Amino acid sequence: MSEALRIGLAGLGTVGAAVFRLLSDKADHVAARAGRPIRVVGVSARSRERDRGLDLSNVTWHDDPDTLARDPDVDVFVELIGGEGDPASSSVRGALTAGKPVVTANKALLAASGVELARLAESKGVTIGYEAAVAGGIPVIKTLREAVAGNRVSRVWGILNGTCNYILTEMEEEGLSFEECLAEAQRLGYAEADPTFDIEGHDSAHKLALLAALAFGTEIDTESIHLEGISTITPEDLEAAEELGFRIKLLGVARRTESGVEQRVTPTMVPRMSAMAGIHGVLNAVAVDGDEVGEIMLVGPGAGSTATASAVVGDLMDIARGGVCPPIFGMPAKDLAPYKRARMRAHEGGYYIRLAVYDRPGAFAAIAQRMAEQSISLESIMQKDRRDPDNPGGKPRRVVLITHETSEAQIRKALTAIMDDGQIEGRPQMIRIEMP
Amino acid sequence: MSEALRIGLAGLGTVGAAVFRLLSDKADHVAARAGRPIRVVGVSARSRERDRGLDLSNVTWHDDPDTLARDPDVDVFVELIGGEGDPASSSVRGALTAGKPVVTANKALLAASGVELARLAESKGVTIGYEAAVAGGIPVIKTLREAVAGNRVSRVWGILNGTCNYILTEMEEEGLSFEECLAEAQRLGYAEADPTFDIEGHDSAHKLALLAALAFGTEIDTESIHLEGISTITPEDLEAAEELGFRIKLLGVARRTESGVEQRVTPTMVPRMSAMAGIHGVLNAVAVDGDEVGEIMLVGPGAGSTATASAVVGDLMDIARGGVCPPIFGMPAKDLAPYKRARMRAHEGGYYIRLAVYDRPGAFAAIAQRMAEQSISLESIMQKDRRDPDNPGGKPRRVVLITHETSEAQIRKALTAIMDDGQIEGRPQMIRIEMP
Repeated sequence: MSEALRIGLAGLGTVGAAVFRLLSDKADHVAARAGRPIRVVGVSARSRERDRGLDLSNVTWHDDPDTLARDPDVDVFVELIGGEGDPASSSVRGALTAGKPVVTANKALLAASGVELARLAESKGVTIGYEAAVAGGIPVIKTLREAVAGNRVSRVWGILNGTCNYILTEMEEEGLSFEECLAEAQRLGYAEADPTFDIEGHDSAHKLALLAALAFGTEIDTESIHLEGISTITPEDLEAAEELGFRIKLLGVARRTESGVEQRVTPTMVPRMSAMAGIHGVLNAVAVDGDEVGEIMLVGPGAGSTATASAVVGDLMDIARGGVCPPIFGMPAKDLAPYKRARMRAHEGGYYIRLAVYDRPGAFAAIAQRMAEQSISLESIMQKDRRDPDNPGGKPRRVVLITHETSEAQIRKALTAIMDDGQIEGRPQMIRIEMP
Repeated sequence: MSEALRIGLAGLGTVGAAVFRLLSDKADHVAARAGRPIRVVGVSARSRERDRGLDLSNVTWHDDPDTLARDPDVDVFVELIGGEGDPASSSVRGALTAGKPVVTANKALLAASGVELARLAESKGVTIGYEAAVAGGIPVIKTLREAVAGNRVSRVWGILNGTCNYILTEMEEEGLSFEECLAEAQRLGYAEADPTFDIEGHDSAHKLALLAALAFGTEIDTESIHLEGISTITPEDLEAAEELGFRIKLLGVARRTESGVEQRVTPTMVPRMSAMAGIHGVLNAVAVDGDEVGEIMLVGPGAGSTATASAVVGDLMDIARGGVCPPIFGMPAKDLAPYKRARMRAHEGGYYIRLAVYDRPGAFAAIAQRMAEQSISLESIMQKDRRDPDNPGGKPRRVVLITHETSEAQIRKALTAIMDDGQIEGRPQMIRIEMP
């Protein structure tokens, strides 16, 4: 058996500790399947004193991840510090510049600088493994980069954030409000104290940007992702979705269109009987539509320390076997096409619209007229809330519309006109429908 | 860009033609992502005259796949002839002996001789790609061999035959008999004229044997798989399953147990709300339970010419990139452990039992007594079929039992005793329950 692959591990949070533990507890298993031992020789973390339950007696401690990354005794640098800034960025650059492969779970860093880092890595003839950065232990990177590489991919989409999926599942099953379910998720440790990053879709956006680059051979463009979070989703929406045969999921969708690549992270309705609708709780799922393979879907835990460690170690074992790794984003970073954004206004699909319509003669006719003016045809119309006999015309009544396929430009024009007409209270709720 | 990888393609049936078409229609796409062109330079098939709609003017025709396999102009041999005998076997051996990597969709050949072929390949320093042999375009081989290589896998299981899943889905949705749905599947081209290989589980068994070897690092043992087909499943079973919160699927399950590896292909009940229960029609799904990653599941079309071609080309692109491929069965074939079979009698789990019980006093008590004697406790008891008031004691009444977890040895003893007691008509129906 060949010499051990020597790992420098920066970051000993829950994932870093799980990687350390996996590589020491299952050293023989890993060596048998990787063809050589994989051994952590150096570590770096914020506090040297903290007890992590790890035996660090045989590894070199580095206060500075940058020095660990450049340590000549380190063959591969594993970055589990997180964040797009330094020291994550500086240490990764240091390792690549020194000609060392990098394995990272850092989606923020890659979403911000992935192509630049890939160019640096490829100029040095080394790879960046980042299976752990998207959907935890589910092998979506390997699938897109290698398994379906012969396909022209038309869409990659899925549930990329377990926190949001947990909250939406709970809202649906328990009939609770967003706020109640968020509080429960925080209590269970599924949501951060400041949950903005998850619930407003930023976390999903980082992952989607990487998937889109891989799927379409384009440069990463996280900035151009159309973002809508789940905090506007109400129990009324979930109830209406159920009645209409849908479920609401926070989906990341990247799609090749005639005018460019559409990327969005939005609450989305999917048909209740579809596989995507059946993904409950903290699970993640990624589906890929390829012209040869059809649609494949990968499901599993999208987070968690050992699931993420599984992906990190899978990448390390690929590197340990040696040889040529596939290009980091499926094709050499220098050959990635510039990202061409398809505007959301050009999005085509069905829409769910919920309106609070004043209960007076002609209100509904005016709304229907505005839809007709934009050539929007309606698949279903559902009027909720009984008229209060003691106070007719008092409380606005809930009207839910499902449109046939139309463009977002038309929907927006119709909704603007409806608001201008003064027939509805507040703003309309609008949720896109995605078909498998 | 490097020189083209030159392919010898044996077998021009639907899959072979799809591979040929993919590599010519998307030559640029493939070259950009594989780092070099991949070009078919030689082909072999049974009939040279047959019009397949392929432009074969620039490829060398070989009447004999063995000569194609050994042709010095061929870098990689793609075997899509099928069958475990010659010429598939001889040509694959010829190519490996000549030091050429092989890509194949031939599960029968690998199930019969996979370890021996892997030893030959590894002694020559070349690989065998067989992603296409299991679950079509779904990357299950890559996932087990590479992505979750750091896990100790406790179970790999799934729906490995689209024909059976189509038939069971139709039986359930339409309430039709097995025979009716089989005829429909044959009409649609989902089932062969002689469907034995699919419906009796042999096709699933070949695939399961390969997955088990990869998952557990053991030699392949197709012969020891416990096989039961779907032809004994009746609409009554599907109806009872639905009432009890289950669905019936033909599952291949390989599980690591204390006494060895259990491998079985049997009609199996899965909880209705589980992801596996939601796999309808001709789709396949494979789930892997790893000690680090938890449970991941891969879903997609398990057959079809272009989906299978997608997997063949994925393997070819891995080879085109060069470098060291992972060992064919996850670890070097010479290091695979001998297969140690866990007897089905040692299987533990819940059971569904359907009995036709004579309608006479004491019959049910006798059955309950026989279960109790084997310490089998019952989770639910459902009696169907009303007593006929004009003919009490005439027709046997249907009784469905769901047991708590017990061993197969106990169940078999109880059922034998029940049959010996003469309280039931015919043989009991027994279906194992698999929990996610």
